[in-house]
Amino acid sequence: MKAERIKASIRTIRGWPHEGINFRDVTTLFEDPAAFRSVLNRIAGWAEEEEFDIVVGIDARGFILAGALAYQQHLPLVLVRKKGKLPFTTISEDYELEYGSATVETHDSPIIEGKRVLIVDDLLATGGTALAAARLIRRLGARAVSFAAIIDLVELPGREALTKSGIDVYTVIDFTEAE
Amino acid sequence: MKAERIKASIRTIRGWPHEGINFRDVTTLFEDPAAFRSVLNRIAGWAEEEEFDIVVGIDARGFILAGALAYQQHLPLVLVRKKGKLPFTTISEDYELEYGSATVETHDSPIIEGKRVLIVDDLLATGGTALAAARLIRRLGARAVSFAAIIDLVELPGREALTKSGIDVYTVIDFTEAE
Repeated sequence: MKAERIKASIRTIRGWPHEGINFRDVTTLFEDPAAFRSVLNRIAGWAEEEEFDIVVGIDARGFILAGALAYQQHLPLVLVRKKGKLPFTTISEDYELEYGSATVETHDSPIIEGKRVLIVDDLLATGGTALAAARLIRRLGARAVSFAAIIDLVELPGREALTKSGIDVYTVIDFTEAE
Repeated sequence: MKAERIKASIRTIRGWPHEGINFRDVTTLFEDPAAFRSVLNRIAGWAEEEEFDIVVGIDARGFILAGALAYQQHLPLVLVRKKGKLPFTTISEDYELEYGSATVETHDSPIIEGKRVLIVDDLLATGGTALAAARLIRRLGARAVSFAAIIDLVELPGREALTKSGIDVYTVIDFTEAE
């Protein structure tokens, strides 16, 4: 499927969650099986080239792609969740938001050690959550960390921040603010 | 894969989130690709017999299974989320928790009308969340609503409550409190 058709499956909500933001709503993409499949298969194609060992999903929309990708690629799936959601021993990382900060956690799992890890989310904006997730995965001894998402908000510094930190980035489509 | 091996992939955490509860932690199942695949393929086998039109995932662990199932079955995926997480026009339903109440929402989506819908989550306990999700889906005009999960906590009344409400239930494995 052409990138333009994938983009057309995404709903833009002007002024959400607050004025001045054009929110890219991927729930309409998930409701379109051909668009969802195209996105997933493109990420899977890149994942096969890179030979990842483990998929990491970011809470909560990232779980949808990460679950489908781990299933399709026969790979272990590890969860990065908001604080307080994981029941076993965890490690955590804080990151800055526009106002205040947030914390992500993952289980202190031995399966990450020495592995090539692909972190998956729906969207790349400033990269704050992705970088915090990458710090968690590196603390657990990953050999390499990469990141994939459906959307890159290209005017925001996410891709550059991740690349500077040694994280390879794959995104399926770009959005500019004006779109 | 035998049910006993799937069960062995699930970690039990005694006394979480509070004393007296044996929490069944499916994150270790998701880290085991063969166990995840077996669970998903069993649910998919049932889904094919039932000829569902739409998969609904419940926030957040339900998204993992629902994403993989919708991908594998080429079906639209609709999200039921906690209050305030969906950006477009929503409808909501409250349900009772042990202490207090909670609210789930879904987008006021026209694609549910007249369709056979499968709601997916990781675990069936009292059925409160599943019933609230089913009320949402019925308000949107679904022709039939069913429910699938990995685990049935068989001493809790979830299955009976769903069945009484006309919801067919499929679960992969049972846990008793003593296990």
